[in-house]
Amino acid sequence: MQKVRVHCFGISLDGYSAGPNQSLDHPLGVGGTGLMEWFFPTRTFQKMHNRELMNAPEQIFGQEGGENGVDDDFAARSFEKIGAWIMGRNMFGPVRGPWTNDDWKGWWGDNPVYHCDVFVLTHHVRAPLTMDGGTTFHFVTEGIQTALQRARAAAREKDVRVGGGVATVRAYLQAGLVDELHLAQSPVLLGSGESLFQGLDLPSLGYRCIERVPSAKTTHLVLARS
Amino acid sequence: MQKVRVHCFGISLDGYSAGPNQSLDHPLGVGGTGLMEWFFPTRTFQKMHNRELMNAPEQIFGQEGGENGVDDDFAARSFEKIGAWIMGRNMFGPVRGPWTNDDWKGWWGDNPVYHCDVFVLTHHVRAPLTMDGGTTFHFVTEGIQTALQRARAAAREKDVRVGGGVATVRAYLQAGLVDELHLAQSPVLLGSGESLFQGLDLPSLGYRCIERVPSAKTTHLVLARS
Repeated sequence: MQKVRVHCFGISLDGYSAGPNQSLDHPLGVGGTGLMEWFFPTRTFQKMHNRELMNAPEQIFGQEGGENGVDDDFAARSFEKIGAWIMGRNMFGPVRGPWTNDDWKGWWGDNPVYHCDVFVLTHHVRAPLTMDGGTTFHFVTEGIQTALQRARAAAREKDVRVGGGVATVRAYLQAGLVDELHLAQSPVLLGSGESLFQGLDLPSLGYRCIERVPSAKTTHLVLARS
Repeated sequence: MQKVRVHCFGISLDGYSAGPNQSLDHPLGVGGTGLMEWFFPTRTFQKMHNRELMNAPEQIFGQEGGENGVDDDFAARSFEKIGAWIMGRNMFGPVRGPWTNDDWKGWWGDNPVYHCDVFVLTHHVRAPLTMDGGTTFHFVTEGIQTALQRARAAAREKDVRVGGGVATVRAYLQAGLVDELHLAQSPVLLGSGESLFQGLDLPSLGYRCIERVPSAKTTHLVLARS
């Protein structure tokens, strides 16, 4: 059965999945990259070799091949059997309001890491954007249900991955549309920013924790609907 | 130097340290004992052998001696070098409003686990209550600073432990008065209840995570002021 999956979603000790003051320089907010420090050294991330993704610091590259292990297992799993992506507009880029031109083409260079159809939730119409390597960004103005319908069709026999940001994941959770949510909780305090859980009653929505695997750097947790 | 310490403070994946609808039957709220399942089988807890504490289910006893290991290390550490306790009135018991009589003497039987002076924060005057085994409950109506002052004096060269509940720990954190906070984050979702962190900006208050030790059942985290 086709699933809707969220993966590698960082969360701080105090419950934030993005720090305060998100911007071009801080796509995950101030302090937010601390949530992804388990991810950057993995073999999976190193293979993507895309510094722009997550605004990762330059010095994390150059580790030949990257690290194997629990963290990489979860990183690799996140890309398996994904046939389409959905993301919020703020994950696509820092531009706000109407698209004044087509200059912004995402954080990921000419050949983005997705290699499939990506549906970007926005209030502002924009023509689809075809990139190298099989990625096409579609801009959906009709809301989360329509985006999911289109993503399901595009994914065919594969799954749909909801990438982020926090507001997008929360919207799909609240609607009970996420089948599987992989969190990586890191020993970082952010103090403010975007809370993942505040006001979301996950047990009432049918979610429980079905898997917990601590690694040296983070605790991997998989939530699913029972 | 004398420290103010919080220990063995359970927190759910979604950030709650007590579930909804706290009552005589559910002192930690509905689902809240799930936060302490790592604690009940420990040697330290089994030695206390006090079923009333935390409203632990009866079947957890009878394990000869209890379990050693990481969880027990943290449980044992929580009682070391403690010279006085502070707790909120709701941790002391389910009675609300003025004390109409002295019938309620805490959850812990005639010989409570504290064996020292315990300062109970309340808005309602009550005479001190001396129990077996060296525990005296003092009822403090002058607020958290006065309670701490008295607890510090009573503890002499030892430390002060702030027991709970959530509102009490939050008040001492917000005032920057906690030196060390040991959390045990368990893979449990509560959905609602008392959030430990909401609205508390711990990094701004100088806190960071200085220790992280995952066990089979929970993740031990120690926050301290730097």
